[in-house]
Amino acid sequence: MAKRPLILVTNDDGITAPGIRTLISVMKTIGDVVVVAPDSPQSAMGHAITVNSTLYLEQVVIDGKQPEYSCSGTPADCVKLAVREILERKPDICVSGINHGSNSSINVIYSGTMSAALEAGIEGIPAIGFSLLDYNWNANFDYCKSFVETITMQVLEHGLPDGVVLNVNIPKLKNEDIKGIKVCRQARANWVEEFDKRINPMGREYYWLAGKFVNMDNGEDTDEWALEHGYISIVPVQFDLTAHHAIQSLNTWKLK
Amino acid sequence: MAKRPLILVTNDDGITAPGIRTLISVMKTIGDVVVVAPDSPQSAMGHAITVNSTLYLEQVVIDGKQPEYSCSGTPADCVKLAVREILERKPDICVSGINHGSNSSINVIYSGTMSAALEAGIEGIPAIGFSLLDYNWNANFDYCKSFVETITMQVLEHGLPDGVVLNVNIPKLKNEDIKGIKVCRQARANWVEEFDKRINPMGREYYWLAGKFVNMDNGEDTDEWALEHGYISIVPVQFDLTAHHAIQSLNTWKLK
Repeated sequence: MAKRPLILVTNDDGITAPGIRTLISVMKTIGDVVVVAPDSPQSAMGHAITVNSTLYLEQVVIDGKQPEYSCSGTPADCVKLAVREILERKPDICVSGINHGSNSSINVIYSGTMSAALEAGIEGIPAIGFSLLDYNWNANFDYCKSFVETITMQVLEHGLPDGVVLNVNIPKLKNEDIKGIKVCRQARANWVEEFDKRINPMGREYYWLAGKFVNMDNGEDTDEWALEHGYISIVPVQFDLTAHHAIQSLNTWKLK
Repeated sequence: MAKRPLILVTNDDGITAPGIRTLISVMKTIGDVVVVAPDSPQSAMGHAITVNSTLYLEQVVIDGKQPEYSCSGTPADCVKLAVREILERKPDICVSGINHGSNSSINVIYSGTMSAALEAGIEGIPAIGFSLLDYNWNANFDYCKSFVETITMQVLEHGLPDGVVLNVNIPKLKNEDIKGIKVCRQARANWVEEFDKRINPMGREYYWLAGKFVNMDNGEDTDEWALEHGYISIVPVQFDLTAHHAIQSLNTWKLK
């Protein structure tokens, strides 16, 4: 790529989160950066978009002098607004994150970080969602930088297949303990919820969603295996959800 | 199935929407029905779940005498609460809808209706999302009934492959003009947004998300083709998002 690439940066933890500040600092060494991110945390928003309410977009300066865009909507809204209202041309890449917490396995479905990457993919923009397996607001993102740069440069060099974006998860380890980067499939794992039922000060019952993550998948080619064994996982993710393997058997059904 | 099946009903338009009331009336002819649905419209919520806020669940009686459950959360929250807090055993099927408006093609990603079906699928429950291509609150759902019954009975008889749920869309037509039911793949189509920029009474700029749906797919095996030609579409949908076809080429990259 002769020119400096144009890079769209977003996330779901909000524009001031340490994860996105780290991601922005890496991207500024690679290309021209435009930041459009939610004005407040949007975790677990899935692929929500704002259709029945209004959207606000404000220019803000957070560090340095370059204005960024703070949006009242979801991560997917941020990408739509960036493409239609802010950017003068289609960006060369969209990066989302670095998320404070895992988006491995089935979490990709609930993830606002990945919904932004998927929305960019739908727009035909190569896209990556980055997540660190540490929910702490003040997590150490420093050692993620070189890996984020390597993966981003590879996507800029090779592009991505049509309809595919990358879901990258980084284990919480010391830099020297990271064994490498593995391309994986999504593990068959999910959450087993246990709702925490409480009584509010007005005497009304309410619930908190809680639970534990259970991996039922013994495969060694999964993101869960890679992360447990000290590797960064990359899962190529698609937004054509058709279960092609199921079509033939459904066609034997009695559907008048 | 010897016993009457246990059927979980939910939606994303809210528990009082005519679409879910129609769905409930059909399901009561098939089995024992438990309704757990959002207390207000949740359209375009994608696969959002409520993790940073509280959830309320109230018993309500809307028509007839049987109590139903009205939930302050998203469609996915409703399914999680139903499975963990309300139902004494795993239901035989979960049906979501009937949505007021299309969830064909890429809309499956933004759809609260389908997120409920996917959440049930993740729990190992056979699940179907039904949508009518009419956004009107007072749309005519009557002619959908026999098709909803046929498809539900077929799922109860055959089950569904592990990891697969059904996305059913019904065209807005007279009953006699429906040509039949087709098993399809998701069309390659998406929204081209045009944000509508306005000024609020306080002088601040805001946006409405607007736009048009564009089908780039000429295939005759897609849901869009079926719906345009008078057929009800069934797309089998999976929640393993791995783009398996992309793994081999990614493995040739220079990832240290």
